[in-house]
Amino acid sequence: MFGGIEAGGTKFVCGIGTGPEDLETTQFPTTTPDETIAQVIGFFKKHAGGKLKSIGIGSFGPVDLHPDSPAFGHITNTPKEAWKNFDLRGAVLKALDVPVEFETDVDVAALAEARWGGARGVSDFIYMTIGTGVGGAAMVNNRLVHGLVHTEMGHLRLPHDRREDPFDGCCPFHGDCLEGLACGPAMKARWGKPALELPPDHPAWALEANYLALALANLTFALSPRRFLLGGGVMQQPHLFQLLREKFARVLNGYVRHGDILDRLDEYIVPPQLGGRAGVLGAIALAGTTSRDENA
Amino acid sequence: MFGGIEAGGTKFVCGIGTGPEDLETTQFPTTTPDETIAQVIGFFKKHAGGKLKSIGIGSFGPVDLHPDSPAFGHITNTPKEAWKNFDLRGAVLKALDVPVEFETDVDVAALAEARWGGARGVSDFIYMTIGTGVGGAAMVNNRLVHGLVHTEMGHLRLPHDRREDPFDGCCPFHGDCLEGLACGPAMKARWGKPALELPPDHPAWALEANYLALALANLTFALSPRRFLLGGGVMQQPHLFQLLREKFARVLNGYVRHGDILDRLDEYIVPPQLGGRAGVLGAIALAGTTSRDENA
Repeated sequence: MFGGIEAGGTKFVCGIGTGPEDLETTQFPTTTPDETIAQVIGFFKKHAGGKLKSIGIGSFGPVDLHPDSPAFGHITNTPKEAWKNFDLRGAVLKALDVPVEFETDVDVAALAEARWGGARGVSDFIYMTIGTGVGGAAMVNNRLVHGLVHTEMGHLRLPHDRREDPFDGCCPFHGDCLEGLACGPAMKARWGKPALELPPDHPAWALEANYLALALANLTFALSPRRFLLGGGVMQQPHLFQLLREKFARVLNGYVRHGDILDRLDEYIVPPQLGGRAGVLGAIALAGTTSRDENA
Repeated sequence: MFGGIEAGGTKFVCGIGTGPEDLETTQFPTTTPDETIAQVIGFFKKHAGGKLKSIGIGSFGPVDLHPDSPAFGHITNTPKEAWKNFDLRGAVLKALDVPVEFETDVDVAALAEARWGGARGVSDFIYMTIGTGVGGAAMVNNRLVHGLVHTEMGHLRLPHDRREDPFDGCCPFHGDCLEGLACGPAMKARWGKPALELPPDHPAWALEANYLALALANLTFALSPRRFLLGGGVMQQPHLFQLLREKFARVLNGYVRHGDILDRLDEYIVPPQLGGRAGVLGAIALAGTTSRDENA
């Protein structure tokens, strides 16, 4: 039995199980570290006392992912003051005394989609969420990309034609990066109402598809993935997927000559399959890697 | 003893050896496939007849890198008509009857820098050349990134302020992508003379550094590399490296909080170390992977 913690900026989801079939979860709002961690510990002690083999955490970030770093498992540079430099992994480890694996929230969601969802059998793919923020994870040769820190796909810099779209962008660091131009709050700031209230024929969607297409093109040029999974609040509109595929083809302009891109974009740019459970399932999958590594 | 072939669009370099210490090379211009391959075969038969364990090829592209594809080892969609769909690997394999490994030209140069050059011991890095064209290779978790096809970093889409730089870009596919804005021919078209003739205080260099900084920022967001190696004709100017580091820091704006980026950019964005020999050395390194795989 594994434990999983999806540590989000708004809510924490805790789960116990081995996969989608037997997963049991609970969730509570993210408040202070002390209070939130006490609830996490309480849940696992009550429902799995002594039975957990290991725990996986998928955390909001930025985080330190390097096991040899003194800050491994810490949330680092977050605007949430109370969580800045908080040793999330250490707090769980100390209270529950089982192995604790640690990843970003998008990384574990990608792990879950790779194991049980829309990326089964796909060695190289990109998972993105476009919602309040924009984040992404990349799998390359069946392994997550970490590198120096971790990816920050929400901050890709894109062409921005200010005659067509005079909105300055809302990213406090970069202004008109991908997140600054295309996240949910950017849509709301630009059009005066939430994305969900904009009808499918509103020009907001063509503009949104344009920025997402440019971002996906850049990720294709940088990583050549075999599939894109796109989730998050903004993507809950089937018409946006079709618009995005058309714009993506137009941006690439036939340059990348592979049937999956030239002829089968409806299987290349797709929604994830695990919905709201991807995070906590991915944390469970991550917990399972501890024992898998021992057997490797 | 290994054989290496750097198959470039302008010239072919063939080498025999095991590394930088004992490498012997020859080179000739790229003409027709028949004529060029005859010279390649002649070189290896004359200088290494019967002694070669395997051959590595690093080829100009686009190419098919997937061993299970019918077009594996072919040059595919090149504007060089005579080479379009040419089975480069097959031609070498048929004539010399030893194992033949196949990669892109930038991928093998990255392999060489990883083994003998500026990326020794670096698990995740990006190697780019900025010259007549712009190309790049990425190493992630010590393995080259291939994915669906291969990376095409020269075609990243970037912010392009036409008030500051009205040049339309020269990429026949995308106009003002990275290559279209920042390759050697783009500099020449924009300023009326070759990059090499522009003095260090010419505004061309600040603009060039700006585009390269945006591209490196996008690659940092997509891949989080531990180092960038930048070569090619345009990068043969020490002052450009310094300008680029300054602009890169300004584009990231403190968002990626790691000492290597915040404090040590002079070790993070660097020239490669193997110069003109990186391609053929990488082909030799690639040839060596055949026997290494057997032992794995």
